[in-house]
Amino acid sequence: MKWLDCDSCDQDIVVSSRIRLARNIENIKFPQKINKDDSESVKEQIKKAVTENDEIGKNYRYYDMKNLNIVESRKYVEDHLISPGLLEHNKIGGFLLSEDEKSTIMINEEDHIRMQVLYPGFELEKCFDESNRIDDILEGKIKYAFDEKIGYLTSCPTNIGTGMRASVMLHLPSLVITNQINGIIQAVNQIGLTVRGVYGEGSNAMGNLFQISNQTTIGESEDDIIQKLKNIVNQLVKNERNARSTIYTNNKIRMEDKVCRSLGTLKNARILSTDEAMSLLSDVKLGIEMSIIDNIDRVIINKLMIEIQPAHILNSADKDLDANDRDILRAKIVRESLEEEVIK
Amino acid sequence: MKWLDCDSCDQDIVVSSRIRLARNIENIKFPQKINKDDSESVKEQIKKAVTENDEIGKNYRYYDMKNLNIVESRKYVEDHLISPGLLEHNKIGGFLLSEDEKSTIMINEEDHIRMQVLYPGFELEKCFDESNRIDDILEGKIKYAFDEKIGYLTSCPTNIGTGMRASVMLHLPSLVITNQINGIIQAVNQIGLTVRGVYGEGSNAMGNLFQISNQTTIGESEDDIIQKLKNIVNQLVKNERNARSTIYTNNKIRMEDKVCRSLGTLKNARILSTDEAMSLLSDVKLGIEMSIIDNIDRVIINKLMIEIQPAHILNSADKDLDANDRDILRAKIVRESLEEEVIK
Repeated sequence: MKWLDCDSCDQDIVVSSRIRLARNIENIKFPQKINKDDSESVKEQIKKAVTENDEIGKNYRYYDMKNLNIVESRKYVEDHLISPGLLEHNKIGGFLLSEDEKSTIMINEEDHIRMQVLYPGFELEKCFDESNRIDDILEGKIKYAFDEKIGYLTSCPTNIGTGMRASVMLHLPSLVITNQINGIIQAVNQIGLTVRGVYGEGSNAMGNLFQISNQTTIGESEDDIIQKLKNIVNQLVKNERNARSTIYTNNKIRMEDKVCRSLGTLKNARILSTDEAMSLLSDVKLGIEMSIIDNIDRVIINKLMIEIQPAHILNSADKDLDANDRDILRAKIVRESLEEEVIK
Repeated sequence: MKWLDCDSCDQDIVVSSRIRLARNIENIKFPQKINKDDSESVKEQIKKAVTENDEIGKNYRYYDMKNLNIVESRKYVEDHLISPGLLEHNKIGGFLLSEDEKSTIMINEEDHIRMQVLYPGFELEKCFDESNRIDDILEGKIKYAFDEKIGYLTSCPTNIGTGMRASVMLHLPSLVITNQINGIIQAVNQIGLTVRGVYGEGSNAMGNLFQISNQTTIGESEDDIIQKLKNIVNQLVKNERNARSTIYTNNKIRMEDKVCRSLGTLKNARILSTDEAMSLLSDVKLGIEMSIIDNIDRVIINKLMIEIQPAHILNSADKDLDANDRDILRAKIVRESLEEEVIK
């Protein structure tokens, strides 16, 4: 996935930021109830609005869910480029993906339009500005389902109002090690935000990757939502940095040992499950952020955390693989990409 | 330790062979009861008999136990150059060590004279020939305590007769993995031979290294003892090879995974206990013998199995180290010696 390329601020802890806007076209039923003709009409209207636009049209490519096999579609989900929900609408769904992969406009997911903008690092404003630009372009051609009092109308009431979901992906290994994460998840939930594992749930999040996002979309402006999320993320970044520094101060050599062993296993194992690989990559990522490891680029690890997911592994093989063969291929892919890096 | 240098037969399983002869000087009390003057006289007679000999004299250097600190003495024990018993006789004991370290003549251990010859690989005849040569040289100058009917008289009845202990050190990881080792230890014990862990006991032998030796020294000729030991060792070598091949055939990739992970840990860990290091080195040794690893010389691993023992680690440091600092230094030593090897 290209979207992770480039360095940005706070990337030692914040892996990525995302804004997603839900929109629907006036007077057409939501995708769950839509008929064939209307679903085609929705697709055509949105494709046309984007691809015929002078400013952004040339940057987008359209993918129809019907034309993707299950491995390809899942790979886009693992890349965070489309939602798992779009897989469930594979008969009527499609998406427009920008050249730099930072922006996706999903069609006929839960809503007619789900546009998302993704940036590496802590870049909510960039995401918001870009999603607004796309939103404006679409709104120039399409009449949105909108209510003056409520705001944007959406298929599920949890998105109504702004239709906006702002989220940030964080790497919080030290809050997990020091058992602070469960308390934090509870506290964050109480103030209207949600924390969940990016892969896996709660404190068993694979790779210690957590996504924090706004729960409510109504009663607050977009700016308020983003500001609130930023405040909490800043707090979590501070907590994680403190925990890292405490662990390192109290037991430098044990932390170095753990990080270096994990790198050694990644560079040498012949069999690697997704779970184990995520856990080892999390250690190595922490090692890079703590300057214990200095010859591997963090982007390589961020990408590997995606590239070792099951659909990516299946996609790398020419044939169908059972779980055991996937684990063998996963180990090979990890080994080769770390070998290349270390030699540089 | 130099004695491990050089390649020899069956070294994929047999690490080393040793012959040890126990001898005493006529009309002098055994070391346990000896007085100061006699103990000095024993030392002088033996030193003189060796160092003044034209053939071997120049090859030997004398070490007095009084002049060695505890770390130095233990290091010689870990090197297999002197016995733990000599440490207990540190007021009256000493030893002559040959330049190539293959031969040691201990003085005032349990007996006045304990000469041993050590060779890497399966070389009992070489050991026996060399120990006979030294025995003849000593016998030319010293009158041994000897009885026509019984043979050589020794301090402990378990050595009486030939005074010979022949032993072979074997690396038997696959017999341990397949749970065959306990049955084998019992069977071997029943035919008058002893199997024990080189470091640690029984099937918990560290590094899966086992020493097999004759239990009885009376009622059998030296040749018979050696022949019996050779037969059993050949059988064990065959058993271990079969077990290796079965494991490899049944699960090639799992074996490669284990071996490569162990190498990765050795090359990257920052903290290593003796136990863990021995276990990892055993895996890597197996990997070398099975041609899974082809860029590391087995001699390096055989030596590391000795060099990571506690006294060796302490001896590498300028100052006294606690267990934690020893584990840190051990990891550094292992890392550096494997790094050097792999680069070649």
